[in-house]
Order: sequence, then structure tokens, then C-alpha cells
Amino acid sequence: MEAKTLVLALFLLLLLSQSSAFPSRKPRVHKPCKRLVFYFHDVIYNGRNSKNATAAIVGAPAWGNRTLLANQNHFGDLVVFDDPITLDNNLHSAPVGRAQGIYVYDKKEIFTAWLGFSFVFNSTEHKGSINFAGADPLMNKTRDVSVIGGTGDFFMARGIATLMTDAFEGEVYFRLRVDIRLYECW
Amino acid sequence: MEAKTLVLALFLLLLLSQSSAFPSRKPRVHKPCKRLVFYFHDVIYNGRNSKNATAAIVGAPAWGNRTLLANQNHFGDLVVFDDPITLDNNLHSAPVGRAQGIYVYDKKEIFTAWLGFSFVFNSTEHKGSINFAGADPLMNKTRDVSVIGGTGDFFMARGIATLMTDAFEGEVYFRLRVDIRLYECW
Amino acid sequence: MEAKTLVLALFLLLLLSQSSAFPSRKPRVHKPCKRLVFYFHDVIYNGRNSKNATAAIVGAPAWGNRTLLANQNHFGDLVVFDDPITLDNNLHSAPVGRAQGIYVYDKKEIFTAWLGFSFVFNSTEHKGSINFAGADPLMNKTRDVSVIGGTGDFFMARGIATLMTDAFEGEVYFRLRVDIRLYECW
Repeated sequence: MEAKTLVLALFLLLLLSQSSAFPSRKPRVHKPCKRLVFYFHDVIYNGRNSKNATAAIVGAPAWGNRTLLANQNHFGDLVVFDDPITLDNNLHSAPVGRAQGIYVYDKKEIFTAWLGFSFVFNSTEHKGSINFAGADPLMNKTRDVSVIGGTGDFFMARGIATLMTDAFEGEVYFRLRVDIRLYECW
Repeated sequence: MEAKTLVLALFLLLLLSQSSAFPSRKPRVHKPCKRLVFYFHDVIYNGRNSKNATAAIVGAPAWGNRTLLANQNHFGDLVVFDDPITLDNNLHSAPVGRAQGIYVYDKKEIFTAWLGFSFVFNSTEHKGSINFAGADPLMNKTRDVSVIGGTGDFFMARGIATLMTDAFEGEVYFRLRVDIRLYECW
Repeated sequence: MEAKTLVLALFLLLLLSQSSAFPSRKPRVHKPCKRLVFYFHDVIYNGRNSKNATAAIVGAPAWGNRTLLANQNHFGDLVVFDDPITLDNNLHSAPVGRAQGIYVYDKKEIFTAWLGFSFVFNSTEHKGSINFAGADPLMNKTRDVSVIGGTGDFFMARGIATLMTDAFEGEVYFRLRVDIRLYECW
């Protein structure tokens, strides 16, 4: 075998290494293997909206309580949520899944939060879940959290979710736009 | 080099790509590189069982408290646990490790939970930890959460854990069967 | 093509498989692709230090409260924190980022905790976040948690963080040394 055949073989190898026979990870380019955009809607219980609330304060610092978000930028408030996921920014659109988990406000000086949650789908479109964790410095226009895993249609997924506050109303409602880019698809 | 030698070389390559010289990820087949089955046992503190309790409510919604699981399918109850892990379904078998972390009930209409926890092992059999996160729609016969990492013997592990409620007694005890399939082993 | 050319081709292949054209994962050697060492400092609110406190108890078992860590090795106490990260072990060094998230004490018999948190950087040195989860049996000299993801400069990172209690003062202050070894770098 001459040098040029070897070169050809190695070239084919390199091509192959980018193909789907190998993990879809592409160290340089960072092009997502899947992209999904959703909205979710959080209505926080405030003592008067128990019918509509999708979230409730369940932990609070010594100086706070569970019907009013605490002073000092809500530092220490821990919220459990079960929020509808929609395809557009309308709270009343048919939900395509639920965003479920916790967030905590975790800074006294400005609003920031830490999130651990899942998107749960059970429709003809999507079955399975996507799991997220990360810091949410929510005064920034966009902020990134990690996709740390997935199940069902999202088996073993990893990636980045970019959060954007799409709207909020006082301390009762907010809506997040979530732009999910998966970089590991199985 | 003729076409057939190239084909042979590429075939060998593909074989190699499945071997241990390459990451154990197998995009198509999804055959686990490691499988483990355990049971864990959760005894929730109810004000009268402090000696036996392995778990306690530490957060609750405004309408709940920390000795009784709340109305509305326990929505908002946050539980901390340190549960024995056993190899069979007997609470009194010798524990092989501990399941430690948190779960929150996160839906008003039915029972669902969100989990963040670890299996911690320190025996001759296993040393290290497996870390989990995900949604647990616990009325389903089986449900999948993500293995998001591991340490020690489970260094860098990723995979899926299938949970099954193996038994429960009122609101005091439940036992989960956990079928762990790792798809990334190092 | 003779056997020896094939052997040569396969040898070159194996070499290639270790090169940067392929994922940086090295199943056998486990050499980190990035290593970072930091300290972070946790000052727990105790009712009298509201100005300096960087952390607060926000969940507690029925037998505890939110200004004093609970009996039974603080089992059930859930703490939210926003701790300064420094390059050396001096609390008063200029912070290079913040450690933000939650920990829960989760064992009655000894001190252990479960952590879900992020390192958040926004300096010329580092921009982005590193996300962590795992068990912290804090009486051990060192213990490992998982790096479950990252954003920005730490895009898609995975690895292990080794925690060491570098100092503590009663129940008000502790300092952790965090030795981060990433094994997946993008």
C-alpha cells in the first residue's frame, strides 16, 4: 500500500469520525443536534390565588414567610412549581407539557435564582423528560443553564438551555422563554 | 489498494469504534455498559416515629406543616431523606449503601415528585456515589430519571434509572426498586 | 494489501483516536482536560449576623427552626447560599465569582450533606458557570461531587470536584477548598 492510499484511508476515517456512527459531539463547531423552543408560565401562590397558582413558596428565611416573597430580593425563598409549557407566549394556549421542580432565590443584593427542574412531555409530539440545573441571574436578558440529562425521546440528552424572561406581572406571574440546544443526542 | 481492501479497512474501523479504545457510547443499540438493581426504603417522620424515620418534611406550602403531608396531593412538601439501600425488597436486609437527598411533591392534581439525590456506597462491593435528578410521576408503574454523574467506582457515569414503587404503607413508608442502566462508563 | 500494512493502518487509527479530532475523553488514563482550584466561604445566618451572612436556613424539620441548626447533626436543615469564591483561603481576598445554590444536612447520626449548586463567574479570567451535584459526607477529609454541566467558558463541561473542609468556626463559618477536574472539555 502506498503512502497515498494510507492518506486516503485516514481521510475517510476523519470523515467517518464526524458521521453518525460516532458520538454526535463536535468539539469545535458546537452545532446543536436538536433545538427546541418553549415557554413556561409560573403563577406564584400569594394567599389569594390558590385556584390559579402553579407554584408555592415552601421554604423561606427566618425573616420571611410562605405567602409573600421575602425582603432582600427574596433571598432564601424556595419555590416548588408545576408550570404549563406552551409553544407560544400565551398562558392560555394548550399546554404541551409541564415544567416541574424547584427554584430558590439566592442573592440579597439583586435577583438571582438557582434552578433544578424537568420538562415532562407526554404527547404525540414528545414523550419523555429533559432535566435541567443551573444558576439563573434573572436580571440578565439571557442566561444559560445546563441540560443534565433526558429520558424517553430525550434519552441521555445533554446541552444548554437559554432562559429569557418574556414577561412578568408584579410578584405573581412570570413567563420564561426557553431555547434548548442539545449537543449530545443519542 | 482495491475497493475491497478499503471496504475491509473501514469494516475493521467500525468494529474498533465499538471497542473499548473508544468511548463506550453506542448511539444506536443503547446497550448499557453497566446495570445495577437496588431497593431503597423511605420512612417519613410523622411526629410519632422519630426513632425509625429516615426522612422528614422540611419545607411545606403555607397550607401545610412538617408532620403531616399536605392536602392537594402533598403539593409543595419538600422531604430530606437518608434511606437504606438493600439488594432485595426486605427493609431489614443489611444495607449496602444510603440513598440521600431531597424530593418535592410538585403537582396538585395527582402525585408527582421531583428528585435530586445520590446513592452512596462504601463497601467492599462498591465504593463511590451515583448522582440522580429528574421527574418522578409516581402513579406510573415505571418512570425514568437521569444518572447525571458518579464518583469512585462510578466515575463519570451517565445513564438512566428506572424507578418502580415496590410497596407502600399509607403515608409513612414506601419502597422503590431502582434499575440503573449506565450508558457511559469510564 | 498485506497484513503488515493493515496493522500499520490500525496503529495509526489508534493514535488518531487519542487526538483532538475525537472527544477528549480518555477512558483509561483519566487525565483531566482542565483543572481549577478555588475556595468558597459560607457564613450562616444565626439571627445576629444578618450583615455578613452569605447563607440562610430556609427549611428545617419539625423539631428545628431557621436561626439555629437542628439537633441530630442538623438533619433536615436546608440552606440557601451565595458564597464568595476566592483563589486563596482568605475570606477577605477579592472574590472571583459566587457559589450559589442549596445544601441539605441529610443524616441523623453524623454530618453529611447533599449539594446542588453552581459556580458563577463574570470576570476577565472566567465567564460562565459550572454546575455541581452530589453527596458530601463532610466528616471525610476529601469527598467527590459531580460536575454535571457548564456554560460559557465551561460549555458542556463534565468532571469531578473534590471538596475539602479547609476551616470552620463553630456553626457559623466554613470554608471549602474545591479542586475541579474536568474530563470532558469542549
